[in-house]
Amino acid sequence: MAVKLIDKTPSAYDYPLLIKQLLHRPIRYAPEQEIVYRDLCRYTYRDLYKRIGQAANALKALGVEPGSTVGVMDWDSHRYLELFYAVPMMGAILHTVNIRLSPEQILYTVNHAEDDVLLVHEDFLPIVEAIKDQFQTVKKIVLLKDSETAPQTAVPLDGEYEELLAGADADYDFPDFDENTKATTFYTTGTTGLPKGVFFSHRQLVMHTITVMAAAGSLHTTATFRSNDVYMPLTPMFHVHAWGLPYVATQLGVKQIYPGRYEPAMIMKLLVTEKVTFSHCVPTILHMILTSPAAKEVDLSNWKVIIGGSALTKGLCKAAMDRGIDLITGYGMSETCPVLTLSQLQPHMLDWSKEDQIPVRCRTGQPIPLVNLQIMSPDGTFLPHDGKSTGEVVVRSPWLTQGYFKDPERAEELWQGGWLHTGDVGYIDETGYLQITDRIKDVIKTGGEWISTLELEDILMQHEAVSEAAAIAVPDEKWGERPMVLVVLKDDYKGKVSEEDIKAHFMGFVEEGAITKWAVPDRVAFLDALPKTSVGKLDKKVMRQQFS
Amino acid sequence: MAVKLIDKTPSAYDYPLLIKQLLHRPIRYAPEQEIVYRDLCRYTYRDLYKRIGQAANALKALGVEPGSTVGVMDWDSHRYLELFYAVPMMGAILHTVNIRLSPEQILYTVNHAEDDVLLVHEDFLPIVEAIKDQFQTVKKIVLLKDSETAPQTAVPLDGEYEELLAGADADYDFPDFDENTKATTFYTTGTTGLPKGVFFSHRQLVMHTITVMAAAGSLHTTATFRSNDVYMPLTPMFHVHAWGLPYVATQLGVKQIYPGRYEPAMIMKLLVTEKVTFSHCVPTILHMILTSPAAKEVDLSNWKVIIGGSALTKGLCKAAMDRGIDLITGYGMSETCPVLTLSQLQPHMLDWSKEDQIPVRCRTGQPIPLVNLQIMSPDGTFLPHDGKSTGEVVVRSPWLTQGYFKDPERAEELWQGGWLHTGDVGYIDETGYLQITDRIKDVIKTGGEWISTLELEDILMQHEAVSEAAAIAVPDEKWGERPMVLVVLKDDYKGKVSEEDIKAHFMGFVEEGAITKWAVPDRVAFLDALPKTSVGKLDKKVMRQQFS
Repeated sequence: MAVKLIDKTPSAYDYPLLIKQLLHRPIRYAPEQEIVYRDLCRYTYRDLYKRIGQAANALKALGVEPGSTVGVMDWDSHRYLELFYAVPMMGAILHTVNIRLSPEQILYTVNHAEDDVLLVHEDFLPIVEAIKDQFQTVKKIVLLKDSETAPQTAVPLDGEYEELLAGADADYDFPDFDENTKATTFYTTGTTGLPKGVFFSHRQLVMHTITVMAAAGSLHTTATFRSNDVYMPLTPMFHVHAWGLPYVATQLGVKQIYPGRYEPAMIMKLLVTEKVTFSHCVPTILHMILTSPAAKEVDLSNWKVIIGGSALTKGLCKAAMDRGIDLITGYGMSETCPVLTLSQLQPHMLDWSKEDQIPVRCRTGQPIPLVNLQIMSPDGTFLPHDGKSTGEVVVRSPWLTQGYFKDPERAEELWQGGWLHTGDVGYIDETGYLQITDRIKDVIKTGGEWISTLELEDILMQHEAVSEAAAIAVPDEKWGERPMVLVVLKDDYKGKVSEEDIKAHFMGFVEEGAITKWAVPDRVAFLDALPKTSVGKLDKKVMRQQFS
Repeated sequence: MAVKLIDKTPSAYDYPLLIKQLLHRPIRYAPEQEIVYRDLCRYTYRDLYKRIGQAANALKALGVEPGSTVGVMDWDSHRYLELFYAVPMMGAILHTVNIRLSPEQILYTVNHAEDDVLLVHEDFLPIVEAIKDQFQTVKKIVLLKDSETAPQTAVPLDGEYEELLAGADADYDFPDFDENTKATTFYTTGTTGLPKGVFFSHRQLVMHTITVMAAAGSLHTTATFRSNDVYMPLTPMFHVHAWGLPYVATQLGVKQIYPGRYEPAMIMKLLVTEKVTFSHCVPTILHMILTSPAAKEVDLSNWKVIIGGSALTKGLCKAAMDRGIDLITGYGMSETCPVLTLSQLQPHMLDWSKEDQIPVRCRTGQPIPLVNLQIMSPDGTFLPHDGKSTGEVVVRSPWLTQGYFKDPERAEELWQGGWLHTGDVGYIDETGYLQITDRIKDVIKTGGEWISTLELEDILMQHEAVSEAAAIAVPDEKWGERPMVLVVLKDDYKGKVSEEDIKAHFMGFVEEGAITKWAVPDRVAFLDALPKTSVGKLDKKVMRQQFS
C-alpha cells in the first residue's frame, strides 16, 4: 500500500490529523506518570515515548516502511500500547491479530491483511508453529516474552522485542503524511463466513480519541473518565484497540495498568494495589469478576466501568451497583471504531434512587458528539424518536470503517445510501436514548409479531436461580418461529429448577403487561455453559444449529 | 467565493467535519434546556434549532447562498448564537463585525470582507448611517432590535429579524460541502496598519470545539466546563466567536445566558438569578466586576472563570479567589481560533494552599490536545523547555487561520516555515507550562538586556494603591530604551502616592532578587485612565507615542 508522504511545512489548512499528534501533550505534561504491566514491568510516559522511537527503529531495521503491515499477537501489555503508536506513526499499518480465532482463521487473517512482520507472544508460538509454513507475506517474526528463558520452538525468530529495542536509537523522525492513511486493521467474526477486516485511518482514530475523551469527561455525570483516574482495560487490545480507550487514557495522562491475559486473581490484585478507578469490559468479564472468590473481599466502590459488547442486564447492573461499582453502558461495534453511544445519566437523574437509575444505566445510550444515529425502517425511511418505532440502527460519524478489506461485496451491504447499517434493531425515545432490542438476525418472528430475544434474556436474568441465559428462535410449522430459552443455573440451584418454574416466571411478566403471552418460550433447556464466540459473546449461530 | 457542494451520500471516508454536525447531539438530547438573553428573551434548544432553520430561510430569501458573506453587528445575544450556526451551515460566511472599531475601520472591514447582507442592532444604526453610502458590496440590511418601537433612521432596512423569522419555514435542508469551506471571519486590530481578516473553516471550528470541550471537561481539575454548568460569556461574540465557547456550551447542552452589552448591574443580576457557574473574560472585565458596587453583596463562590486576552496578574487572581471565584488562565489569539493553552492545576496541586496555587493559575498554561507549541530562537532553532530559555512562541494545530484575507504579505509574516509565529515571547518550564513574558514588540531592550513589561506591570499591581498599570519602553540615548510606567491610582489614594513611592516599591523587589536594578523604571506617570484598544487591551502604541 502506497503512503503519500507530505512535506513537514504545510500551511495551517493542510495540518493533518495524525496519531503522533496525540502524543504532543501527554509526553510533555505527564512525563513521570506510570504505565504498569501485571507485576512484571513499570515505567513512565517518558520511557513510553523513548520506547516508541526504539520500536520504530527496530521495525525499520526489519524492513518495515510506510505502507508495510505489522501483525501483533499479544496479551494486553505495555508493548501493545507502544505499538499502537509506533507502527502507525511510521506510516505502517498495525494489524491487531484476533488471538481468539482458530489457528486456521488466524492464518487466514495474517495472509489476508498481508502482514510483513509478525510480533508473537511466547504463549502463541504453538499456534504460529502450526501455521507458519502457509504464511504468504510474513518476512520476519519477532518474539514477545515475559519469561526469563528462551522458548523451545520451531518458529524461526528474527529477534526478541526487548533485545531489539535495547539495540535501537530512541530518536525517530516520524514523517507527515495524508491523514486518510490506513493506521490499523482488525478482523471481526461474523455469524457466517470468513473473518472480515475492518480498518481505520489516522484521521478517524484522532477524531474518535478526542470525541470519546470529550464525551466521557465533559458530558458524563457518572462513570466519568478524567485526568485523575487510574485506567485498566478489560477488553482486549486486539479488539478495535480496546475500544480506543488506551489512546484516550494516554491523552489524559493517567496511570495505565495492563493486565495481560484475564485472570480474576491478577485483575483483583492490580485493581487493589494500583488503585484502579476506571475500566471497561463485556458483561461476561464483569460477571466473572463479581462471582470470583478473588473479588469477595475487595472494595469495589471506587471503580467505574463502561460495559459494552453485549447488553447489560438489569440483574448484573444491580449486582455491580450493590458492590459499589459505578457503571454505564457503551454501544458500538468493530466497524465503528467502536464508540457510538454512552448511557450517561443526565444531571437531574443523579438524585434518583439506585432502582430508578438502573434502567437508564442499562439503556444502550445517547450518541456521543458528531455521531448522527437514526432508526431506519426496512423501506429506507427514517422513523420518529418516540420510544416505540423500531427499525435498524444506521449511523454516520467521522470514524466508521470504509468497508471490509478486499471484500467489496460485504462492504456494500454494510454501507447503503451513505449510512452504515449496524444490523441492530432498536428504537430511540423522546429523551434521545437509544435502546437496542435485538440483532436483525436474532429477532424471533412469530405469527407476524417480533419478539426481542434480549427482552426474554433480561427477564430470565431476573430469576434468582439463573446465572446465564440465552433466547433463540426455533423453526415452527405453524408460527414460523417460536422462542426457546437456554439456561445455566447457579450452582446452588442446579437440579432444583424445572422448565415449568421458568415458564411460570415468564407468566408473571405477562400478567404485569411487560410482555405478550406469545413471548413466553415453548421450550427451556438447562445447560452447564452457553456457547460463546471468540470475543466472549453468546454464539447464537451454534445454539440455533443445536436446537433447530 | 465558490463553495464545492458534495453529494449527501459520501463514503465514511469522506464524511466531512461540518458545523451542522455539532447540533446532532444537543438538539436531541437537551431539547428543553434554556437559552436566555438578558431579561428580554428565554427559549429552549428546541426553539434554537427551529430558529436556525427560520434564519436560514429568511437569509436565503434575501439572496444569501453558499459563498455569500453575512455581516453581523450585535451585542452578545441569542440571535448571534443562531447565526453562529445558520450562516455557516448554509455554506455562507459569517462576518462577526468588530463593533469596537472606529466607523471608518468598520466600513473598511465590511467592504474588505465583501459582506452581502448586514444584520445591525438598533444601537449601531448611527454608525451604519454614517458609512452606508460607501458600502461596496452590501445589498440588504436587516434590523436587530430589543425595543418595541421602530427606530428613527436613514438606513434603508430590508426587514426586521424577528418578523423575517416569523414568516419563514423552520425546515431547511442544510447541504453537505467540503469541510475546508470558509465558515467565519473576523477582523483583528494590530498595533499598526489596517485591521486584518482572520478566517476559519468548518473543519477548524469542529476540531476547536471538540478539543476545547475535551480539555475543559476531562483534563481540568478546577475551573471545569461540563454538562451540569450554566454558561455566560463575557468576551464578545464578535471576537473569535467569544473564544469558541458558545459552540462548546451548545455541545454540552448547558443553559446559556447572553448578557447583551456589558453592564455590571445586569451581569450580576443574571449571574444570581440564572445561577451562572462558568464564564470567560479579559482581566479588565473581571476587575470591573470585582470593583463594581453591584457585585459587593453577591456570592461569587460558585463561579468559574477562564481569563484570557492579557495576562492575569497575581493581585487580580488573589482578589478573585478571595471572593471564592475559581479561575484559571487561557491563552490564544484571534489568529488561533483562539484557544491554545489552559492553566489547569495538576491533580497533585489541588491540596496546595491558595497562595501556592496562584502562580500556577496565573501561568499562561499547558497546551490543550493536538496543539504543538514550541519556543523558537531568533535564528529559527527550537529552544529547550527548561523554564529559562526564552524565545518566540510558535505553534501548529488543526485550527489556525490560514493567513489574513487578501493580505498575502502579512500572512507570510505570520506563517514561517510551517509554524504560526505568535509574536509573543516566553518560555516553557520542565512541567510543560508556558509562560508568556512579553510581546516581541513590547520587550524593553536596555543596554543589551531584555526587561519584561509584563513583569513590571505585575509588580505594580501588587502595590496597594494601584488600580491599573502599564509599562512601556521609551527611547534613551545611552541605553537604547528605558522602562517607564503609567499608573492609575485607586480613588482613595489619588494624590497621596508619589513617583518616589512607586520607585521604592520596585526597589523592594530588587532587594528580594526578583528583578535587576536595571528594571526599575526611570519615569512614573499618574493617569486617570489607560489608553485601550477596541477589545479592551492596553494600547501601548498610543502610550509610546504619548510619552516618547
